[in-house]
Amino acid sequence: MKKFINRVDDFLSESLAGFAAAHADLVELNNEPVYVRRKAATPGKVALISGGGSGHEPLHSGFVGYGMLDAACPGQVFTSPTPDQMMAAAKAVDTGAGVLFIVKNYSGDLMNFEMAAEMCEVPNATVLVNDDVAVENSSYTTGRRGVAGTVIVEKLVGSFAESGANLEQCKAFGEHVVKRIASMGVAFSSCTVPAARKPTFTLGDDEIEIGVGIHGEPGRRRARIEPADAIVDELLTAIVDELKPDASTPLLVLVNGLGGTPLSELYLLFNSATAWLRQRGLTIGRVQVGSLTTSLEMAGASLTLCSLDDEMMRHWDSPVHTPALRWGR
Amino acid sequence: MKKFINRVDDFLSESLAGFAAAHADLVELNNEPVYVRRKAATPGKVALISGGGSGHEPLHSGFVGYGMLDAACPGQVFTSPTPDQMMAAAKAVDTGAGVLFIVKNYSGDLMNFEMAAEMCEVPNATVLVNDDVAVENSSYTTGRRGVAGTVIVEKLVGSFAESGANLEQCKAFGEHVVKRIASMGVAFSSCTVPAARKPTFTLGDDEIEIGVGIHGEPGRRRARIEPADAIVDELLTAIVDELKPDASTPLLVLVNGLGGTPLSELYLLFNSATAWLRQRGLTIGRVQVGSLTTSLEMAGASLTLCSLDDEMMRHWDSPVHTPALRWGR
Repeated sequence: MKKFINRVDDFLSESLAGFAAAHADLVELNNEPVYVRRKAATPGKVALISGGGSGHEPLHSGFVGYGMLDAACPGQVFTSPTPDQMMAAAKAVDTGAGVLFIVKNYSGDLMNFEMAAEMCEVPNATVLVNDDVAVENSSYTTGRRGVAGTVIVEKLVGSFAESGANLEQCKAFGEHVVKRIASMGVAFSSCTVPAARKPTFTLGDDEIEIGVGIHGEPGRRRARIEPADAIVDELLTAIVDELKPDASTPLLVLVNGLGGTPLSELYLLFNSATAWLRQRGLTIGRVQVGSLTTSLEMAGASLTLCSLDDEMMRHWDSPVHTPALRWGR
Repeated sequence: MKKFINRVDDFLSESLAGFAAAHADLVELNNEPVYVRRKAATPGKVALISGGGSGHEPLHSGFVGYGMLDAACPGQVFTSPTPDQMMAAAKAVDTGAGVLFIVKNYSGDLMNFEMAAEMCEVPNATVLVNDDVAVENSSYTTGRRGVAGTVIVEKLVGSFAESGANLEQCKAFGEHVVKRIASMGVAFSSCTVPAARKPTFTLGDDEIEIGVGIHGEPGRRRARIEPADAIVDELLTAIVDELKPDASTPLLVLVNGLGGTPLSELYLLFNSATAWLRQRGLTIGRVQVGSLTTSLEMAGASLTLCSLDDEMMRHWDSPVHTPALRWGR
């Protein structure tokens, strides 16, 4: 196992300490229980909290800040955080309007967030993200997995909350957004969970996993490496079959790297996606290219489309100031 | 070779087309000859042009925009651009104040930029970047290699040029900055140049290359994988020996991923670097963590320190608006 690491047990705490020190203008790290919170709260705003297993950085801690999350609760690598983390974070960031939990659909996350929601003294609601169209049910999931589309949910609902919406409205808007997002990914390599010390799965020299999950869960099929255009065709066909956007709907296109794939290849994928969408008369409204929801050092990428309406477009464009996404202020 | 690629010959052009389409608000791509230019020029400003072999994205094209470069000239992967690219870019972006070429110290780049500088009708000057303290002379270099510190040079001189400095002043400031930057990197894996179809070099399962160049050039030594703290100690010892910063000098710390290493490990490296610098009474003034100067999909990272003076600090903090670095506006 080749990683920048000292002791396996300290990987998460050292990485989080570095993250918090590098972004001390924006975030604060709490230990025992572990959560990352925004330094400058917006008073009276519904507070947004997400979390999940670590190893998907910058998700979620990198999206704590103005216009997105108020707190993130990181679990150990690929392991759900525990309810005490969510409860402590909720208490810390609530300014009276309650908290909205944004949860990726994995059984462990769901159970722990549900327990936190029940025990939490702060009024709360939950939005479940399940954008991965690759498979129904999976290793750690009943129903679809939540993957890179989560970033879009956090951005749009984060902006919506900044605009003064109440808890009920934030939940309803979040559920509206989730229905309009679909994603699918492909892996060129496995990743290695530090505590496991060996790759989660193995792929042959010319093999890829189409529809892979962000923890290395099996996808739809294992294939020989294919040209980028063929991979994009398979992913976008599945995504568009699900969303069925019409020609006039502006699509937000997110090309997401899984951790070990360089920007040059992600831009090539976007170029291929552009051609595919245009051939079908579909409209690209907004674009985001980068490694935002990763699987440790996994080589690969996912594509996400989000059917924007006017309100969603406005909330995508609105200012955001977090460690990993920043524009407009 | 597992890459998102269609045909090897089209890798660069498809990747650049995707990049330009994703950032059409900021940049324009010119074909024949190939360069990326800023959409909104600052009239009367010295124009900054950089370039070099591709494969180091986001360097340089990702730094075209307000407060950094006016144009970038990408060569084929790990291959210098040709003088016609620099000459055409210079003609396109000069607004009457001349152009400053920012060149990484590699023999091919140097030769081609020198030819362009000589033949160019636009008044011009050159700043050479050679921040890599790992080795004197190398596979493609006489003297030290230019690596991730180039980003700092482009940011600081870019801001300085926006402030209205003339060509001579920009060159002098650039040379002042270069002297205050030192870098060193380490590779955990090789990378594969698309046209070569096989890895540039090989490393054993537990081997790392300390002092590696950004094209996979040999460094100081090949070692067994070590704890992050030991790696940071070796890199920072070499860097600090070179810069000899005093305790009161604010250091800009750049933790740069080489392409295949995830953010979580880069933040862990920053945490380790923080402890190392504090133990020696040195002062962290500014921080940047990310994969900004890469070697395709190479796993590994480099550390860069830059001794900031007041003027440099002001130019680091000033607004920048490029695809890969953005703050303050």
